Order: sequence, then C-alpha cells, then structure tokens
Amino acid sequence: MPQRRGTRRLVVGALALLALGYAAPVPAQPSDFEIAKKLRDAALKDEWGYRFLETLTTTIGPRLAATEAEARAAAWAESEMKKAGFDAVHRESITMPAWHRGREEAAVVSPSPQRLIVTALGGSVATPPDGIEAEIVLFRLYSELLAAAPGSLKGKIAVVTERMPRVMDGASYGALNPIRRLGPSEAAKRGAIAYLHRSLGTDNHRLAHAGATNYEGGITRIPAAALSNPDADQLERLAARGKVRLRVTLTPSVEDNAQSWTVSGEIRGSEKPDEIVLIGAHLDSWDLGTGAIDDGAGDAIVLAAARLIGKLAPHPRRTIRVVLFGAEEMNYAGPAYAKAHAEEVPRIALAAESDFGARKIYTLLAPQGAAKTPFTRTLADTVSPLGIFLNSAPALNSGDDIAPLRALGVPVIAFRQNGLDYFDIHHTADDTLDKVDPQELHQNIAAWAAMTYLAAQSDLDFRKLAADAKP
Amino acid sequence: MPQRRGTRRLVVGALALLALGYAAPVPAQPSDFEIAKKLRDAALKDEWGYRFLETLTTTIGPRLAATEAEARAAAWAESEMKKAGFDAVHRESITMPAWHRGREEAAVVSPSPQRLIVTALGGSVATPPDGIEAEIVLFRLYSELLAAAPGSLKGKIAVVTERMPRVMDGASYGALNPIRRLGPSEAAKRGAIAYLHRSLGTDNHRLAHAGATNYEGGITRIPAAALSNPDADQLERLAARGKVRLRVTLTPSVEDNAQSWTVSGEIRGSEKPDEIVLIGAHLDSWDLGTGAIDDGAGDAIVLAAARLIGKLAPHPRRTIRVVLFGAEEMNYAGPAYAKAHAEEVPRIALAAESDFGARKIYTLLAPQGAAKTPFTRTLADTVSPLGIFLNSAPALNSGDDIAPLRALGVPVIAFRQNGLDYFDIHHTADDTLDKVDPQELHQNIAAWAAMTYLAAQSDLDFRKLAADAKP
Repeated sequence: MPQRRGTRRLVVGALALLALGYAAPVPAQPSDFEIAKKLRDAALKDEWGYRFLETLTTTIGPRLAATEAEARAAAWAESEMKKAGFDAVHRESITMPAWHRGREEAAVVSPSPQRLIVTALGGSVATPPDGIEAEIVLFRLYSELLAAAPGSLKGKIAVVTERMPRVMDGASYGALNPIRRLGPSEAAKRGAIAYLHRSLGTDNHRLAHAGATNYEGGITRIPAAALSNPDADQLERLAARGKVRLRVTLTPSVEDNAQSWTVSGEIRGSEKPDEIVLIGAHLDSWDLGTGAIDDGAGDAIVLAAARLIGKLAPHPRRTIRVVLFGAEEMNYAGPAYAKAHAEEVPRIALAAESDFGARKIYTLLAPQGAAKTPFTRTLADTVSPLGIFLNSAPALNSGDDIAPLRALGVPVIAFRQNGLDYFDIHHTADDTLDKVDPQELHQNIAAWAAMTYLAAQSDLDFRKLAADAKP
Repeated sequence: MPQRRGTRRLVVGALALLALGYAAPVPAQPSDFEIAKKLRDAALKDEWGYRFLETLTTTIGPRLAATEAEARAAAWAESEMKKAGFDAVHRESITMPAWHRGREEAAVVSPSPQRLIVTALGGSVATPPDGIEAEIVLFRLYSELLAAAPGSLKGKIAVVTERMPRVMDGASYGALNPIRRLGPSEAAKRGAIAYLHRSLGTDNHRLAHAGATNYEGGITRIPAAALSNPDADQLERLAARGKVRLRVTLTPSVEDNAQSWTVSGEIRGSEKPDEIVLIGAHLDSWDLGTGAIDDGAGDAIVLAAARLIGKLAPHPRRTIRVVLFGAEEMNYAGPAYAKAHAEEVPRIALAAESDFGARKIYTLLAPQGAAKTPFTRTLADTVSPLGIFLNSAPALNSGDDIAPLRALGVPVIAFRQNGLDYFDIHHTADDTLDKVDPQELHQNIAAWAAMTYLAAQSDLDFRKLAADAKP
C-alpha cells in the first residue's frame, strides 16, 4: 500500500531496532501521511495563493474568453508559473469566436416607465440598434413556457421568472440551467422575438447573472438576456396587474477566429513521470466582475497546492500537471484540451478541477471504486482536521473542463465546497476579490495540496478501480 | 393629565359606584392607553401600508424629484389618501431645477483597462461628452485631501476612499457626509478636474450609492461621482502598485423651473382642530432603485398609522396632518414647506418624520422636556411590547424635512430603527420592495399609530416643555 510506505518503513525499522535492544533515535523517512499533513499545515500559512488571486483580479481584472485581457492573463500566469518553479510551462491556443458584450438596456415602456437591469446571455445575438419593443408573456415556471402552444408567443417577449433555490452544493444550478441554455430556442419555437429570464442566482441585488446560452440548430436565434432577481419580481407584480410592454436593446458582436489560451505547467514525477495527476481550474472569466470566485480562486488553489508540492525533494512519484483552462465560460477549452491531448489521456491517472469559489471544502468524494483504499483513508485522515468528511458517494464529475477527459475514461476525484452564497455572486459584477476570505482559500489549498500529493505519490490504478466498480 | 383621562374617569366612576354599594358592570369609556394598545395591535395585522408600498414601488417605481414620475407618484398618493378617508387632501408645488442623470461611465485606462462602477452625485455638472481622462491622486482619508496643498491636484482626478462604518443608528452617515457634500469643492480648490469618492455605503456590491452634493460658491464646479465599494478597493490596490489613469464620463443635465410636489392630508381633530400633530415622510426617491426603503416605507408607515387613527370615533383632539414631502433628496421640500406654512408653525404641536427604511424600531426619543410626562410614559408602555425602549436622550431632530420646522421652534419626537443594513441599500439600485419585511413594516406602523394618537389626544404643550428644558 504505497500511500503509507513511509509509515511502514518507519514502523519496520523501529521494530528492528527494538529487537536489537537499541533505542537511540534514528533519522526516519517521513510517511506519506506525515508529508501530506506537513503540506496541509504549510498551505494554511502560505500566502502565495491569495497574492496570486489578488494580482490576477487587480492587474488583469475581467478576462472574457478570447479577448486581449484573457491573453494578458495567460501571459502573466505563464510567467508566474515559471517563477514559481513549474516545469514544462507553456500556453496552448484555442481558436474560437470571441463574443463581445455591447450595450444592454431594458425598460418598462408601459404601464409605468422604469429601467430594468439585464445582461445579455453569452452568445446572444443582437437586437436592432434601437432595440425591440413588445408586450411580454410571463411564465413563472419554465415548464409553463414549454407547455405553451406553437405560435402562442408570436411577436412577444417571453419572460421566465422561475427562481433558483439556495442549496449548499449548488445542485439547483444544474437543474435550472435549461432555462438559460435552452430557453431562448424554446421561446423562439413558439414565436417569441426576444427572451428574458430571471437570473440563475440566489441573491436579491440589482445585478444580473451572465452565462452562456446555446441556440438550437434550425431555430431562429432571438436576443436573450437575464434579469436581476428584483427586476424579475417587479415584472411579476406588473404582469399581475395587466399588460406590460418592454423595450430591450442588446448589441453584442462576434469576432471570428479569435484566440483563447490554456496555460499549463508540471511538477515532474520522481519515479513515474509519464503518469499524470491533472489538476485544473479556468483562467477566463465573465466580463462583468473580475473573476475572483469564478475562477481566479480555483487558479490560485491548484497552483498554490502544486507549488508547495514542487518544493518537496524528492518530488512525488507521478507528474502533477496544473492546467489553467481558457474559455471555460464559453465551453471551448475542455473539449479542445481533451482533443489536443488525446494520446496522453491513457496516462492521466486522475484528474480534478477547482471551479466553485473559495468557500470552505466540506466533503471529499473519492474516485470511483477507491473509497476503501489506503489512498482515500490517508487523504480523509489528512483533511479531517480541515472540517472535511469522506462522502459516501463517489466522484462522478469534477468540473466542466475535466468532463471531456472523464468521458474518455479518466478517473476523477472531487471536493465539494460550501456553495450557499456562491450563486449570489456567480457571473455578476459582484465577483470581486472582497468576496474571498483568505482563510477559507487557504483551507482549500491545504486540502488540494494533500490530495494532489497523495494521488501523485500513490501507485493505485484509479482507472482499473473505477472500471471494476462499475455494475 | 389628559393622556389618561379615560382611565381617570373610569376609576372615579367605579369609586362612586362602590360608594353607593352598587357593583353591576357599566360600559366604561376606554382609556387613551387602551385605545393606543388597540391601534397598535390593529396595525400589526393591517396590510394597507404594505399594499401602498407595493403599489408605489411597482406602478410608479423610481421617482426622482421634479420629474414626470414624481408627479405621477404625487397624483396617485393624493388619490389614495382621499380613498383612505383623509380630509383636506391636496398637493403643493415646489419650483426647482430638475437634475436628470445622463450616462455615467468610468474605466481604468492604464495600467489595466477595466470598467468601474460609478454614479454621478446629484447636482453634479457634466464632463465633456467623451469624458475626462486623467491620472488619479488617491486619498484613503478625507482629511488627507483637506491637508493637500493648493494646486497639488492640478489636472488630476481626486479619489477619496475612506470607508463608512456599519453602525446601528446610522450615525456614521452624517459624520462622513462631507466627503460627498463638500469633497468636490475641496478637490477643486486644490486643482482637481474631477472627483470620485467611495460610496457612503456599508455593502460590498458593485452598486454605487447616489446622493446630492453641494458646490461651494465661487469654486469651479467639477464633475463628481461615487464609486461602488469594490471599485474603491480596486483603485486602492492599483494605486498601491503605481500610477493609475481613469476615464470618467458623466452627462447629467438640469431643467430649470421644474415642479416637485408635496402631498398632504389630515385627520381632523375633534376638540382642538387648529392644533396640529404633523407626521411626514418623503415621496421622491433616487432614480436608481424604486425608493422602497428610502422612503416609500416612511410614506406607508405614516399614512397607514394615520389612516387607522382616522377610523376612531371620535377622532383624537388635535388634528393629525400627514405630509408626503417632494424633493427631499435634493433638499428642497422641507425648507419650502416651512416657508409656505410659516403662519401655521406656532400651531404645530409636535412633528416627526419616518425616513430610515422599514427595519424595526428599537428606541423612542421623547420630545425635549417631555420624558417624564404621562404622554411619554403611556407611549413607552404601549410600544414596549414591540421591543422599543424609551431612550434617555431627547429627540433633537426627526428627519431632514422636519428640520426647518424644528429650527422655527416646532418640537419633535423620534423613533430610531435598526439601521445595520440600511446603508447597504440606501441610494442604490438595490432599494427595491424585496428589501422590506412586511412584519417589520407593521411594527413601525404600530409604533407610529400609538405615538401619533397619543400626541394628538394629549393637551401637553410640547413647545413649552422644550423651552423649559433648555439650560
């Protein structure tokens, strides 16, 4: 059981010495558990990660995929990784259309003129420059829109005001995601000329939550935007009183063949350098905030964790690769990475992504089939003092950028963080550094350092364990 | 002691009956205390006030002073007051310049381009249409700006980032108000060409707090705006790293001789109709939100309280006048009202304004010199079950619109509300209905109903008590 090789060696050695009646202290090689604990404790005091995040969010700020700002972020991150001692640091480009936000204005025209706060969905087409004016049809549930007859929304602006519940693990986001992803095409199928939905967010601020939408092939692409929660409430109250006319102006544009960048670097393995433990996060952000919780924090967490491991001599057995993906928000980097690195995929022993802010981790989801291995037991013991328990469920996913690797058979491991307020801030202008508590960030770094070290030091075949675990 | 007239009569009657050896029950006239308690309890269950607030913030929405929206609000409020049974309902106009917000944009030009969230101060002059671009000089304390030498800010944008502390009674707002009121002229005196300050707000959202500024006579008027708190933090971090250039574009305009409106109505006194207990709030709001906590809540509180008293037969002895002031945010209505009603001022027995949101009242400040009167004792007993204690300090003010009356000798009474989160929302786009808890609003209405009834029923000479109390 290689995860406790060190411990075993120490124990065996001590027994041997006792048998010889010889009790003087000897320099003992620390166990993996001991090293993991030291990494954990060092991470709790290490300010490198927070400084990285502070500098990224301050000196780069917003970094929308395939923009000049994202390119600056990638160049800067590359330079920081080199300074931090990573091996094989480089950037990989992704060619994609860059979506640029334009003006975004909405207002009630009648019965009572007032401004509404909206933000265009990523990928939305534009309205005419002077906007679209029409009556709304308001659905309090998305299922009511889906139940509407073809043609029933002809010439109307469809508005969906279903509210996202606040839950610790953020599972409501995935459940309600079709409202944003598919809603515009569903509304268009029924004749709507524009689409608004209540932000997928749990706050009550006048800040709309951005996010990408996906138009269905063959369906008219209609302009689509998210309303802030109080604005959705206001439309509900107005619609309950009678007809409501809105004017909506969105002027986004698309630049074809732009470049996004993924940055990576490695801590080269001491014994099995060809086997890779891949940990990632994404470097791009939405343009409204400065991408502190989404996902500057993740960048800081995986980089700071790997950087601490890189100071060990010898390095752990397997290579640790840190990947800062570009264009996650537009869903480009993960698929591009899996495609570009297809031949390496069989050598990726385990993968994980940190993309849920900087609140404390509360649970660990072991790789499939690995719950009862010494690796997991040692990791659980290492992170238990951080307030993290071993979940009974296995990790079935670990971040959007990792999903394409997962689909190709790469085993994953995952932490879950307290997400109670994550969707208050997610994809809004409020995603700024002040939302990150340095102590909570450190807790994440400590857990990731322990996990990454133990995974890289392990010689468990996670792929085989996962395969054997399948029913 | 007129506040307990009823009680005394009942007691005297009972004694007389006992003396006659006659113990059968008699219909007793309820005491003022009993009536005040009944009003209080009725108010806790009365939904009229919240409905008023909901309709105001929904069907009118933002209502900046001297705009068409404020006029609509005034006409609607007048109609609602008539429907609710008020006497002498009418509107009074105030001629004033209307300030209209234009575009408001700010961005870091160098070292790292990024948008900043700002809002023009009320009354600010405009920048040129394409903005002002200049380097900033950042002061973390307002006193540091005041200590800067004349000419030292020549051609610069002055930025003050002093932070407003969060306190229960909101006293930090008054203390830091010169940063907004006087800062632009102080910066101009030292050569600055524009002025930005950290919002007078306690939140950490990307929403700037509006508010009026006052230019000093004879000093160049420079464009001035408030930054959101996270944006002020960002400028602090950038300025700590080196020179920062900003572009600021503000395009407000002024319309001379516009009309604002103050609406009032009365519950006519049954015995001393010429003596007035004046309770007020303000109907105008900033344009960014819908004026729910500032001051739709105040309107709802004073109207709902007076409306319940109006259902009593007989009405209390003195007349109750409810005044919904216009243009409070621009500081026009209070002075205009005191001037227009100068001859009535000696007949105003007591005045009070509700202008601090809808959180619970926690303390009562008695009129000067009236702490130990039966009026105050009865009121304190009535509101104690609402969680309100009698403060040892007297009421020295009770809202900005009342201040000019106070200066003319009108005694005031005041409640203080829990303001811990008031300045999270105050003057921002976040001032919307969802920020009001109906139960907390009801607690306010209950306290105001009791206070207003007892003051109108009293024949204490509050003016004399205040005069006698002065050292």
